[in-house]
Amino acid sequence: MVFEPLFSAFYARSVVKILMKMDLAFTPLELERKDLSGKAVVVIDSLRATSTMITAFENGCAGFIPVATIEEARNLAATLQDPNVLLGGERGARPLQGFHVGNSPRDYRVERVQGKIVIMTTTNGTRALVASRGAEEIFIGAFLNLTAICRRLKGSNRDVIIACSGEKNLFCLEDFVCGGAMVSCLEGSGVDLVMTDAARAAKILYEHFSPDICEMLEGSEWGQYLHSIGLGEDVRICSQIDSSGLVPIYRDGKVSLER
Amino acid sequence: MVFEPLFSAFYARSVVKILMKMDLAFTPLELERKDLSGKAVVVIDSLRATSTMITAFENGCAGFIPVATIEEARNLAATLQDPNVLLGGERGARPLQGFHVGNSPRDYRVERVQGKIVIMTTTNGTRALVASRGAEEIFIGAFLNLTAICRRLKGSNRDVIIACSGEKNLFCLEDFVCGGAMVSCLEGSGVDLVMTDAARAAKILYEHFSPDICEMLEGSEWGQYLHSIGLGEDVRICSQIDSSGLVPIYRDGKVSLER
Repeated sequence: MVFEPLFSAFYARSVVKILMKMDLAFTPLELERKDLSGKAVVVIDSLRATSTMITAFENGCAGFIPVATIEEARNLAATLQDPNVLLGGERGARPLQGFHVGNSPRDYRVERVQGKIVIMTTTNGTRALVASRGAEEIFIGAFLNLTAICRRLKGSNRDVIIACSGEKNLFCLEDFVCGGAMVSCLEGSGVDLVMTDAARAAKILYEHFSPDICEMLEGSEWGQYLHSIGLGEDVRICSQIDSSGLVPIYRDGKVSLER
Repeated sequence: MVFEPLFSAFYARSVVKILMKMDLAFTPLELERKDLSGKAVVVIDSLRATSTMITAFENGCAGFIPVATIEEARNLAATLQDPNVLLGGERGARPLQGFHVGNSPRDYRVERVQGKIVIMTTTNGTRALVASRGAEEIFIGAFLNLTAICRRLKGSNRDVIIACSGEKNLFCLEDFVCGGAMVSCLEGSGVDLVMTDAARAAKILYEHFSPDICEMLEGSEWGQYLHSIGLGEDVRICSQIDSSGLVPIYRDGKVSLER
């Protein structure tokens, strides 16, 4: 009898090895073509929506309600009539008239967002969140919470789909590389990964760019665009790997921190 | 006066530098979202449709008529009633009942295809060809005609979109890497390229895999599938870089060699 716990511990270590299937969708359009049931999805819009959300939560934001259109955001705010509700978002990376905050992480300072709920509408990130409905769990990921995301995925032990937001349903380098960073991080943590072609390609791209993620972001098409309209500082903020240990989740139409 | 030709030659060399924009679509679905007017498109289905077409032309095939469905192929053959017309194609990589040839390059031997026109229906390659209508020029590309394709693109001097066929509108490693090989080849030939994120990512992936393209093809999801149903030899044939100098074109619904 004395050997039983020892044997059990050995058994658990040798047999219960984590095996995860890892896939990646380049755009919301591609995500819609995949079977999400029972899976964990990580939505990435590294420049800037998901980086901005993580920053906001670090600064005490209570949550986000992502909506598809500007009109929907305004109508919801009018219905709620709540002083703790802010309007946030962008079109073409620019702030929206009459909205309290844009899509820059620098807008989401403690004094602005602490305890607030933000009704948020962005071009690509929102679309990816909506397309990920149907998954068992939906996490908000970026370079900022890379290791925290991987720890969470490992804990949840489900097959994973990385959902890149892209730009108007076209490929974006920065989300693909960020997804590849998650594949690489999970593999490095000892999980046995079965990678699709897309996940494998992303991992190789990440390894290529890993010596200087900020340079990759600045050189990407969207990073260059943000720089050209004076938002280069945002790009640098979005490159800060593991600056946060938070993993926001998207559930029942809201993004919040798990209790 | 004696200096004028010299000056002109200098002027031509210094100013008329080829500058091309290079983009890449992962799937036919993505291709449909791009503006193709005035551009050259290279359709790639390296495992196996475009590799098979190039092999067939090497063996004297007169041309292909790509059609979307099996029924359409049968109806067209019945209408034409021509002994020089063959039925070719696949579903799930397997030959079709009553068809003369499948989608294996080994089916398209000289004695089988010389002087013949093949009505062809494949799952992904055909879809990519149809989605590329609207481009100024459409070329058939694969690893087999890599350098020839690049020479042709350089000669045509248009902006280029690489059209990966993918697998049922999802990403395929082998087409992406083959597209990257074309980007790399064109860049190496002295063309000034303006690359989109997608073209740049493909080039990096190609450079990663370039020491052993056959291994990359065998390790891709589709390559593994072909191997599992006994078609590993096809994968090796499709890895033979520059085995052909031919560049088939797709025009008016037909694939043929330029006269």
